[in-house]
Amino acid sequence: MSTDAPGTGGTGGTGGARAVGPAATSAPAATGGDSFHTMWADLLPLGRDKSSGGYRRYAWTAADADCRAWFRAQAKARGLTYELDRNGNQWAWQGDPLAGDAVVIGSHLDSVPDGGAFDGPLGVVSSFAALDELRRRGAEFTRPVAVTNFGDEEGARFGLACVGSRLAAGQLTPQKAYGLRDGDGITLPQAMEAAGHDPSTLGADPERLARIGAFVELHVEQGRALDITANPVGLASAIWPHGRWRYDFHGEANHAGTTRLADRRDPMVTYAETVLAARAQAEFTGALATFGKVSVEPNGVNAIPSLVRGWLDSRAADQDTLDEVVAGIEAAARQGAARAGIDLRIVRESFTPVVEFAHALRDELARLLGPGIPVLGTGAGHDAGILSASVPTAMLFVRNPTGVSHSPAEYAAEDDCVAGVLALADVTEGLACA
Amino acid sequence: MSTDAPGTGGTGGTGGARAVGPAATSAPAATGGDSFHTMWADLLPLGRDKSSGGYRRYAWTAADADCRAWFRAQAKARGLTYELDRNGNQWAWQGDPLAGDAVVIGSHLDSVPDGGAFDGPLGVVSSFAALDELRRRGAEFTRPVAVTNFGDEEGARFGLACVGSRLAAGQLTPQKAYGLRDGDGITLPQAMEAAGHDPSTLGADPERLARIGAFVELHVEQGRALDITANPVGLASAIWPHGRWRYDFHGEANHAGTTRLADRRDPMVTYAETVLAARAQAEFTGALATFGKVSVEPNGVNAIPSLVRGWLDSRAADQDTLDEVVAGIEAAARQGAARAGIDLRIVRESFTPVVEFAHALRDELARLLGPGIPVLGTGAGHDAGILSASVPTAMLFVRNPTGVSHSPAEYAAEDDCVAGVLALADVTEGLACA
Repeated sequence: MSTDAPGTGGTGGTGGARAVGPAATSAPAATGGDSFHTMWADLLPLGRDKSSGGYRRYAWTAADADCRAWFRAQAKARGLTYELDRNGNQWAWQGDPLAGDAVVIGSHLDSVPDGGAFDGPLGVVSSFAALDELRRRGAEFTRPVAVTNFGDEEGARFGLACVGSRLAAGQLTPQKAYGLRDGDGITLPQAMEAAGHDPSTLGADPERLARIGAFVELHVEQGRALDITANPVGLASAIWPHGRWRYDFHGEANHAGTTRLADRRDPMVTYAETVLAARAQAEFTGALATFGKVSVEPNGVNAIPSLVRGWLDSRAADQDTLDEVVAGIEAAARQGAARAGIDLRIVRESFTPVVEFAHALRDELARLLGPGIPVLGTGAGHDAGILSASVPTAMLFVRNPTGVSHSPAEYAAEDDCVAGVLALADVTEGLACA
Repeated sequence: MSTDAPGTGGTGGTGGARAVGPAATSAPAATGGDSFHTMWADLLPLGRDKSSGGYRRYAWTAADADCRAWFRAQAKARGLTYELDRNGNQWAWQGDPLAGDAVVIGSHLDSVPDGGAFDGPLGVVSSFAALDELRRRGAEFTRPVAVTNFGDEEGARFGLACVGSRLAAGQLTPQKAYGLRDGDGITLPQAMEAAGHDPSTLGADPERLARIGAFVELHVEQGRALDITANPVGLASAIWPHGRWRYDFHGEANHAGTTRLADRRDPMVTYAETVLAARAQAEFTGALATFGKVSVEPNGVNAIPSLVRGWLDSRAADQDTLDEVVAGIEAAARQGAARAGIDLRIVRESFTPVVEFAHALRDELARLLGPGIPVLGTGAGHDAGILSASVPTAMLFVRNPTGVSHSPAEYAAEDDCVAGVLALADVTEGLACA
């Protein structure tokens, strides 16, 4: 830790904090909070849809490119060493990237369809701001520190979450990645090429991950646990096991105005039964089960559909409960399908087992953040969850007073965001500074 | 009627049938059946989707333009007077278009999404073939005859059926038509302009309709009533009253992995309840009620939707039953919405009251077609239903052995199609020839 206590001012932009690397010569003297506000205002318009007010920062689109350019400009403005890895993840290094045992902080900049401003960007902006805060404090770095932006975390475009971190960690093969398609039939490699990224280099990147001694991801909370505890910042214990299942209900297209009910094989009816079964199973087991995405063919007002495709997202605190809820939904769907002459096919599109964050790192962070820091589990998947299989990872959550997320209404108070920046600065200082 | 009985051969292409108009000098000598087969094979590839095998002939698209060019070429090949009216409907006249008391036969060439080959095109192709058959028979025309292709009958692109005939009959105002938009936000006038049609001329066309003495639309049956009676051709009695209602279920977008069930306002659940209520109401009343089209925002796998928009199509044999089923569905939906904190808005997008076809014309057709011709009601809307408010109209149905329609599997046997051509020829001869 530097000799300056958090929040008490420091030695300014030319102090003794530049022990590691050539990147530390042009640091601004702004507080982490000031720096946060400036960056936040800068990033806010990018990829925002005017009609919904939500964000559409999908992987390898123009909005994504704008966010990436913003990240690169932030790295450059701070004299950080910029890297784009072969899986499309961005890195901004304070100190020697190859020195090893690095402390990496960051999150993602992409969004769900019409998502909020905070999910992802809060972590990236807070990471740059935490670095600024440490420079202002005159912290002396003894380990390299990197800020990251992991690519395609939300999976909004290609249907699979955490593509950048999964590829790097070897949890997604290039072969599988090459087969991903968006709603227009464009493959992931086609989209990458169109955005100027060479898809032939995709794949596990153990050398890069081996540089990392600890990864800490700050994220807006996506529930209301912190609001209930009245703390602006909390620490993650575990990520619930979760997965996505695609339910394809194949019926028979027919005229809605002339086909007798008895002659119908209407997959919309079986889909509706399954949506209600999912809700009932979730209520019964205390888990979560959601159909949030659906696609219908031919999707005509006067046509009985030939195909209704629904995606189930389910999560639970433990594997047994998740197994129970998923099996219950499948049983109900199969029963309804058999009754209505529907051909049902179910594909598990992704699955992530329970993630227990590294206990030693979590305890160290709890010590650095002081007594009374809340420790909470979460149902949301994160790059930190993917990377936890490869490197020690931890997560910080910033209070979300409504719990709303994945929506334009997603919100965190400014003071809480600044508290998050300072907590991340404290943690990074404790881990990476003398 | 000509002196040649149906199907017994005739005087060939240069017989005495050319009493009316300049168009009758280049008629081929083919039988109606041969002519049908040639045209059918010609039209079959246009607008067909290779992957689904279904048709995507949406109004004012390239596929629609191909169909329109085909129609115009058929008119030209027969020396018929071609007209495109100001609402985008095509006409091919045998005889003087302005003589009045015309017999008009035809249907439409556009399709639902991934529709079949027969719904619409069977009527247009059969009309040209019936004209060829009458020429072959050497029929002497005493009234003008026109073949028509009504534009945008299915409403697949802009969500409103029978746009061409509704505009002509004054049942759709130009102002309302100008406000129609497709799924990409393109307005009807923009689409018309892109296809080279001037949208400023849209509107009621009473002068044109005043030329018509009778309109007869031949159509593939969209149920199995004829299959059960073992007749290849039948006559329509009435079109059931029917309508479309848009149900907008507004909830609250949120993260599917972190939002407690108790904190959710998930519109997908209320939509599902409403789909099942529609089915139950239809079963209870003997009516039809279908949700075949749905649109979800943001439609992400891990996002609770902010909006689920579903379209209800409902029809019944009489108005009281339709009122009952529609009210029952609305009541169930409002109850579910209130329980789940969903803001439900319902818009009636279109409605067509019961259509009783002109009894005198129907009786005349029954006489021409001979004893035992089945007379049946139908739940499907047609241009003939729209026009019945302005001119005497009738419909012929051709047997559909599976009842399947609005699907690539839609089918009518070749012999039945030829029987339809000959029946339409007989009817046209009886109405329009000496």
